[in-house]
Amino acid sequence: MRPDGRQSDALRPVRFEMGFSPYAEGSCLVKLGDTHVLCTASVDEATPPWLRGQGRGWVTAEYAMLPRATHQRTRREVTSGKPSGRTQEIQRLIGRSLRACIDLKALGERQILIDCDVLQADGGTRTAAITGAWLALKSACLWLKEEGVIKTDPVHAQLAAVSAGIIGGEARLDLEYEEDRVAETDANFVLTAGGGVVEVQATAEDKPISQGEFDALFALARRGVSALCDAQSAALAGRS
Amino acid sequence: MRPDGRQSDALRPVRFEMGFSPYAEGSCLVKLGDTHVLCTASVDEATPPWLRGQGRGWVTAEYAMLPRATHQRTRREVTSGKPSGRTQEIQRLIGRSLRACIDLKALGERQILIDCDVLQADGGTRTAAITGAWLALKSACLWLKEEGVIKTDPVHAQLAAVSAGIIGGEARLDLEYEEDRVAETDANFVLTAGGGVVEVQATAEDKPISQGEFDALFALARRGVSALCDAQSAALAGRS
Amino acid sequence: MRPDGRQSDALRPVRFEMGFSPYAEGSCLVKLGDTHVLCTASVDEATPPWLRGQGRGWVTAEYAMLPRATHQRTRREVTSGKPSGRTQEIQRLIGRSLRACIDLKALGERQILIDCDVLQADGGTRTAAITGAWLALKSACLWLKEEGVIKTDPVHAQLAAVSAGIIGGEARLDLEYEEDRVAETDANFVLTAGGGVVEVQATAEDKPISQGEFDALFALARRGVSALCDAQSAALAGRS
Amino acid sequence: MRPDGRQSDALRPVRFEMGFSPYAEGSCLVKLGDTHVLCTASVDEATPPWLRGQGRGWVTAEYAMLPRATHQRTRREVTSGKPSGRTQEIQRLIGRSLRACIDLKALGERQILIDCDVLQADGGTRTAAITGAWLALKSACLWLKEEGVIKTDPVHAQLAAVSAGIIGGEARLDLEYEEDRVAETDANFVLTAGGGVVEVQATAEDKPISQGEFDALFALARRGVSALCDAQSAALAGRS
Amino acid sequence: MRPDGRQSDALRPVRFEMGFSPYAEGSCLVKLGDTHVLCTASVDEATPPWLRGQGRGWVTAEYAMLPRATHQRTRREVTSGKPSGRTQEIQRLIGRSLRACIDLKALGERQILIDCDVLQADGGTRTAAITGAWLALKSACLWLKEEGVIKTDPVHAQLAAVSAGIIGGEARLDLEYEEDRVAETDANFVLTAGGGVVEVQATAEDKPISQGEFDALFALARRGVSALCDAQSAALAGRS
Amino acid sequence: MRPDGRQSDALRPVRFEMGFSPYAEGSCLVKLGDTHVLCTASVDEATPPWLRGQGRGWVTAEYAMLPRATHQRTRREVTSGKPSGRTQEIQRLIGRSLRACIDLKALGERQILIDCDVLQADGGTRTAAITGAWLALKSACLWLKEEGVIKTDPVHAQLAAVSAGIIGGEARLDLEYEEDRVAETDANFVLTAGGGVVEVQATAEDKPISQGEFDALFALARRGVSALCDAQSAALAGRS
Repeated sequence: MRPDGRQSDALRPVRFEMGFSPYAEGSCLVKLGDTHVLCTASVDEATPPWLRGQGRGWVTAEYAMLPRATHQRTRREVTSGKPSGRTQEIQRLIGRSLRACIDLKALGERQILIDCDVLQADGGTRTAAITGAWLALKSACLWLKEEGVIKTDPVHAQLAAVSAGIIGGEARLDLEYEEDRVAETDANFVLTAGGGVVEVQATAEDKPISQGEFDALFALARRGVSALCDAQSAALAGRS
Repeated sequence: MRPDGRQSDALRPVRFEMGFSPYAEGSCLVKLGDTHVLCTASVDEATPPWLRGQGRGWVTAEYAMLPRATHQRTRREVTSGKPSGRTQEIQRLIGRSLRACIDLKALGERQILIDCDVLQADGGTRTAAITGAWLALKSACLWLKEEGVIKTDPVHAQLAAVSAGIIGGEARLDLEYEEDRVAETDANFVLTAGGGVVEVQATAEDKPISQGEFDALFALARRGVSALCDAQSAALAGRS
Repeated sequence: MRPDGRQSDALRPVRFEMGFSPYAEGSCLVKLGDTHVLCTASVDEATPPWLRGQGRGWVTAEYAMLPRATHQRTRREVTSGKPSGRTQEIQRLIGRSLRACIDLKALGERQILIDCDVLQADGGTRTAAITGAWLALKSACLWLKEEGVIKTDPVHAQLAAVSAGIIGGEARLDLEYEEDRVAETDANFVLTAGGGVVEVQATAEDKPISQGEFDALFALARRGVSALCDAQSAALAGRS
Repeated sequence: MRPDGRQSDALRPVRFEMGFSPYAEGSCLVKLGDTHVLCTASVDEATPPWLRGQGRGWVTAEYAMLPRATHQRTRREVTSGKPSGRTQEIQRLIGRSLRACIDLKALGERQILIDCDVLQADGGTRTAAITGAWLALKSACLWLKEEGVIKTDPVHAQLAAVSAGIIGGEARLDLEYEEDRVAETDANFVLTAGGGVVEVQATAEDKPISQGEFDALFALARRGVSALCDAQSAALAGRS
Repeated sequence: MRPDGRQSDALRPVRFEMGFSPYAEGSCLVKLGDTHVLCTASVDEATPPWLRGQGRGWVTAEYAMLPRATHQRTRREVTSGKPSGRTQEIQRLIGRSLRACIDLKALGERQILIDCDVLQADGGTRTAAITGAWLALKSACLWLKEEGVIKTDPVHAQLAAVSAGIIGGEARLDLEYEEDRVAETDANFVLTAGGGVVEVQATAEDKPISQGEFDALFALARRGVSALCDAQSAALAGRS
Repeated sequence: MRPDGRQSDALRPVRFEMGFSPYAEGSCLVKLGDTHVLCTASVDEATPPWLRGQGRGWVTAEYAMLPRATHQRTRREVTSGKPSGRTQEIQRLIGRSLRACIDLKALGERQILIDCDVLQADGGTRTAAITGAWLALKSACLWLKEEGVIKTDPVHAQLAAVSAGIIGGEARLDLEYEEDRVAETDANFVLTAGGGVVEVQATAEDKPISQGEFDALFALARRGVSALCDAQSAALAGRS
């Protein structure tokens, strides 16, 4: 039995609050059970020097947690003077994933900065962040098109992310915090609505897993991403 | 005329969402017009070394803004490796103000950490943070008492904070961002419900002000704090 | 009785040594009792990028203490890699205060950097620094005028700063270290010779003070600033 | 055709120089074509505080490149004050992978620190580092057993790592630098000699890949790891 | 001709103001021409952990310049977050030199921290700092003896330091700033009153010097140190 | 008797592996007994801003040790965020020494960056680094000439460096680690093949040494540098 009684292949309840941040060009508060992540997309016309004159744009991401997003308070990273290794890994992952679904030439010489700030953390914050960040990015691109800044929407693929893991030998979809901390293997999948593979990160914590176990996790993830993409589409439809 | 049509002595609409952060011992999302600050109070039984064996507790505060709380995106402070001078001033101010309304001996040898995170910024974030932080602190102390950890509520005074400024020679209460950036003088007052003075910080930006102008700002602040304290009391009553 | 037998409304003996630093465009060693602060003003024609093309100048300040300015040795701030929150607050206060008494357009596109280095600390270093910094700034502006770099002296107001506090219920002017550490309330006032208000910072340490107490502190400060401005004028007269 | 004429499923020539660092408890210079990584294992009996009293040990890793390991000189990371995000990701990956093949209880309360320093870089440094680090770790554990410090060798699995990628639609094993920089998809696999999965990290750079492409990369990696494990075994045999 | 008309083997006028810092256990403001360095010695009974239980003490030094000690203002090192390489070299040199003239066992388990702060810089600040630091250290040790903390004065040798350099082929003693910046070779000597060698640091800036030139610099330094030691002795005598 | 049975005036066996780093414009792995330092020279045509338009080049150096170059593992300096004082002193020494043997105008507006990375440390790493760095620099300059980038070799002097010290009252050449840690006095000499003096750094650790002892160290160093220069010449001859 899972802590909240879900089936092993079930997602937690998902909800997207579009336009949560009124000043951002695109934003979405994603709620996946008790994991809440605020994702904003900021369009920056002042591109960084290395981007200039290349006729293409860039998408990058930052990630952080509010100190009391967690059961126990977490120290602010500014206190230690730099983002932790975990934070850097996550922001690199979000940025790479989003760049795989956008045509940077069609975006033009501008940068979109994605901020993912975790207001409440109950496991799966990085995958929730990617799922919400895609909506923020998409909204910002639609805004750019509506404003007449660009002619075509540069986002060429829809994507979402989900975690899966093995607990007591059982493969489970979308681990919450209590499951995550005891999982033997933890995996994150970023996949497209059309079944394409964007990122796979699987880690056996204590001992290696078999090929069959890896395949089971992958199958769960495909199922989860499909459901998340449906929910994203509904949220986008409600935006207009 | 003020941007939103308010009288010069009127506050923006105020709303307190108590218990916004489910994991924190006390929390409050304060909304003062378009300024939204999430305040949490975390009880830490593992006191810092310098506090041990003194038979008293401590209250300290941290403050930050989400990057896209502002009209233009602001860089995260972790990027530059340390909190800015402005941030440090604000967190010192919040901590000092709260320590003036609590009996640290009655709190016992434990620390309460206040986190004020600005989700949306439209001027007056530091005073909104203090007003909300008092509610978070009060809630955490009530929780400590309800849990039987302490016998009496150590909070001996109710306080709130508000800004006032001079624009075009006119004294105005509770400046929003558009007013704040053109104000000739900016002042912040932390006062108690009973009329006590906790902190006064007045700054003439371009040229000195007269004693009369200073007194007018102080009078506005007293009026504003009184209204904020009433709203706090209502929010606390609704908590139980 | 105060430690040195002064009346509650009396300043410590004050002395200004003009031109203490031979290389600086303006300088003053201010001695207020056993508090000694070296203030220098450095004219920098190479303005920072954000200032260029705006037809106006800038005044900024830095503050530090020698490690053995204090009774117990204090760690150098470079050891911890950044100025403390206290230091940043003080340098921001000094800079703001000075900018309120100078016409930045009349200064032209150049920067004046004020350095306040505490050689000996016996309480009230920040207010002594402001009082001395005004003399250093004024001297540098007179030098600029004498050199023919600018036509008119851009300093349009004379200012000084002083502390006041409440000890055992009594309001006292110009606290020395032994008083400062036991004061219930500590306040700093930056006022002009003409009675204008530039900065007020009042902090109740343990419990709020009454409006009457606040007014008493303000009255003491006016008296102190008036005496300090007289001493400044004498020092300036002696300069020529 | 690949730059060096290899088949798409062929590794570069591999060579392990065991005991390269005379002072280390275990060491190996791994050469995979023109990629040379020096891996050392240092046994530290002074365990970190968080490890004490738990009856188990720890394995952690650090990774760096000499400035002129690369075609163009790379800045030292100490110059910017912290390891880059890339470096932190790699050292976390190495540490996690090694901890999945060792019984930390059997290791006892001691720490083994793995250092992977790239002397020459021609692509695939992180996977070469893992492959060499396993040999350094294994050597240090055998040394601990030979010295009588521990009774049984705590390393319960043999592992190696290899990269694979897609270039011009073709799946290739063990990319060198010239291939790596143009690859559409880059994947790293850490697998055991017995076929177990320890880590999978696959990243589609520009656009998502199909499930079939992902499977092709995985198949290549299995083949490559098998060959690397054979070479490791031979190197270990030659050690005694 | 030298800038101030001195002979090539002449020191600048030297003056020691003993007890300049009233709070320090030992202090001296050394003036060597226009180079003024404030040296303080602080006794710290709370020794660092690595010193405990070894039955001996330690002497260490820190060095800094006030921003406007120089003709052009110098940035504070705290601004860049760490002492420069030059500063670290100088403080290591001062500390090493002083440790060579003191019996650390006779000092007992306590630390003496030397602070050398340059108030005015006209060349030769590091050697002036050593010469003044010896007086501060000696004073602090005499104070420890007078207070009855230690039985015997642990300072077993008297030392001073001086610079010498080659300009236009001529060897000169005690370079001032205008000479220092054009010198072909710059050397610093720390020698004892009895002719012992404590530190020699000679650097040929543009091209190597001959053995004869090196010997000439050494001879000048011996002469200079002898005169400085005489002046130190006179200052010490005047102290009592 | 010395640890390895050498005479007091004998060097350890010396070996230079030219071209160790295939990507560098010049490189040399210098082995002096068990001290192994990899020295590379990187030509950088993108000169730093302060160098531009002056018609001359620059040579600078960096130095580091691999963590397990030493008997006990040493922490990486990136972990503490900055190079240690010792490291900065060494890199400044290497850079200064090399600049004294090269005509920076003849080098043209380009920079040569020397990297000295210690693979194995058994005492004398800084002097070995200088000796090897000269070979790397010379190789890079010959490469620049062979490539036709410059017309004449700008290196106008050959230099090498060696340590000497006093142990038990005996002067010894080229100390290894076991000797270095017990030496009463430690000195490093950078001299040219023609007998010129480039750098002298002598430090009496516990007590001053006599002039005669200093002269004995200098004489040993001359002998050692002469032998090292012969070995350098042989290595350079073998290069062509």
